Amino acid sequence: MRFKFLFFPTGILLCLCLYHGYISVFSWDELSEAASPSLPIIFAITPTYSRPVQKAELTRIANTFRQIPAFHWIVVEDTNNKTSLVTNFLKSSGIQHTQLCVKTPAGVTKARGTLQRNVGLCWLRETFQLTEAPSGVVYFADDDNTYNLEIFEEMRYTNKVSVWPVGFAGGLRYESLVLNDAGKVKGWRVRYDPSRPFAIDMAGFAVNLDLILEKPRAIFRLDVKPGYQESSLLQDLVTMEDLEPKANNCTKVLVWHTKTLNPNLVGDQHFTDRNIEV
Amino acid sequence: MRFKFLFFPTGILLCLCLYHGYISVFSWDELSEAASPSLPIIFAITPTYSRPVQKAELTRIANTFRQIPAFHWIVVEDTNNKTSLVTNFLKSSGIQHTQLCVKTPAGVTKARGTLQRNVGLCWLRETFQLTEAPSGVVYFADDDNTYNLEIFEEMRYTNKVSVWPVGFAGGLRYESLVLNDAGKVKGWRVRYDPSRPFAIDMAGFAVNLDLILEKPRAIFRLDVKPGYQESSLLQDLVTMEDLEPKANNCTKVLVWHTKTLNPNLVGDQHFTDRNIEV
Repeated sequence: MRFKFLFFPTGILLCLCLYHGYISVFSWDELSEAASPSLPIIFAITPTYSRPVQKAELTRIANTFRQIPAFHWIVVEDTNNKTSLVTNFLKSSGIQHTQLCVKTPAGVTKARGTLQRNVGLCWLRETFQLTEAPSGVVYFADDDNTYNLEIFEEMRYTNKVSVWPVGFAGGLRYESLVLNDAGKVKGWRVRYDPSRPFAIDMAGFAVNLDLILEKPRAIFRLDVKPGYQESSLLQDLVTMEDLEPKANNCTKVLVWHTKTLNPNLVGDQHFTDRNIEV
Repeated sequence: MRFKFLFFPTGILLCLCLYHGYISVFSWDELSEAASPSLPIIFAITPTYSRPVQKAELTRIANTFRQIPAFHWIVVEDTNNKTSLVTNFLKSSGIQHTQLCVKTPAGVTKARGTLQRNVGLCWLRETFQLTEAPSGVVYFADDDNTYNLEIFEEMRYTNKVSVWPVGFAGGLRYESLVLNDAGKVKGWRVRYDPSRPFAIDMAGFAVNLDLILEKPRAIFRLDVKPGYQESSLLQDLVTMEDLEPKANNCTKVLVWHTKTLNPNLVGDQHFTDRNIEV
C-alpha cells in the first residue's frame, strides 16, 4: 500500500481524490465579485494541517494577506473532510478564499504539503479556461513563513516565473540567485545541492496563471529527492533563461522561511476546557 | 557590579538611563496628527533585541499592527543607541511610532525586556500630563506573539485593567481567569504558581493610560522571582476586584504566546553578502 502511493503518478492520485470527493470545487463566479479589474489576481496556495499552533499561524498569516488587494487564498487542508476550525476561521478572516482538502495517504511521509499544493493547482485548472482566465499569478505561501507586503506587489506582474531571495533557507541567512551583467539569472546562490535544476525555495518564486493553465501536466512530484520539489514543477514550466528576478535584482530579502516552536503543553493534562478553541 | 544592578531600584536605573542619554524622548505633538479623535489610543510597548529573526518578527507584527486604528507603537530596543535596522523598518512600516532604546546592563540576565518596558512607561509619563492626556490604553506587546485583531478592540475601552486568556502560556493550551457568577475575576486558571498576586501573562492584560499616569511609581521590578513581573506592576495599580474580563468572559483565545525557532544558519560562514539586511 505504501509503495502503491509512492509510485503512483501524482496526477492519478489527484483524480482519485476528486473521484472520492475529498476535494470540494467551488464556482469562481461565486467568489470573484470584488477585486479591482485592472490588477492581476494573486492566487496563494497554502497547505495546512492540524497541530497546536495551526490557528495561531493562520491568524498571523491572514493578518498579512488581508492587506493585499486582488488576492485569493486557496487553503488546502491535509484532512479527509474540511474542518470547522479552518472553515470558521476563513469565514471570519475577511479574505476572499477557497477551502479544499486532501488527506495525504498513510504511506506518504515525505514532502509534506505536496498533495495539497497539487490540489490547489488542480482547482485552478478546473476553475479557469485558458482563454477566459483572469490575469493572475500563483504563489505557494506556507502558513509559517513571514512576508513583507512588498513581495506581493513584486510578484503580481509575472510573465512566466518570477524569483527572489528567501531568508533562512538552506542553512543560510538567505538563499538567492546569481545574475549576469544583463540582470538575468545564471545560477543559484545556495549551499544546499546547487546542482538542482532549480535550486529555489518554495517561497522564492511565483508562476503566471496562464502558464499553469497552458501546462496542465506540470505538478509537484512525490517521487523526487528532498529539495527537488520546486524543480519538479518548474522544469515542466520554464528554463533558467525565462526566470524574472525581482526584489531589486534579488538584493532584498522580503520573505523569510520562519518556523514556529511547538509550544510546551506539558501542564495541560485535562486542565483546559477542550470546548475553547486555541 | 552584578549585585549592584540587581538590587538597584528600577526607578533609579531609569533615571540613570535618561541622564546618560540612552533614551530619546520625542514630542507627542509631533506624532499625533492622525488618529480618530473619538477612539481611545492603544499604546503598545514592544521590547526588541538584535537576533537573526528580529526583522522578520518585526515585519510580521507590523503587518498586524498596521490594521489597528488609533494605534501608537512604542518600540524599545535593548541597545545603547538606536539601530538603523529598527529606525528604517519603523519608518517604512506606515505605523505611528516612537523608537526608544535602553541597554540592559551586563549583570542583568533575567527578565529580558523589563527595562525596555519600563522605559516605555517612562516615555508615557514624560510625554503626557494626567490632566491633558488623550484617552488611551497601554499594552505590552512582545514581537513574537500572535494577535487576533479583535483583542485590540476588546482592550481599547479599559477603565482600569482588562484581562483575557493567553494561548500557549505556562505549559497550557491557554492560561485564563476564574470568574464568579457575576462575571468578576475571582482567581487564576493557571498551572504555573497560582499563588502569584496576579497570575497573568504579559500578553493577557492592558492598563488604562490615566492609571499609568496616576501611579507614576508603578513599574516592572527586576528584583522579583520569575513569573512575578506582571504582579510587580499590577499590585501597584489595582486589586483583583478591579479587573475587567474581556474576550466574551474569558472564553475566547485571541492572543497566543508563540515563539519562533532560531533559524539554522550553519552553512552561512561568510557565504551571504553582509550588506544585505535579513
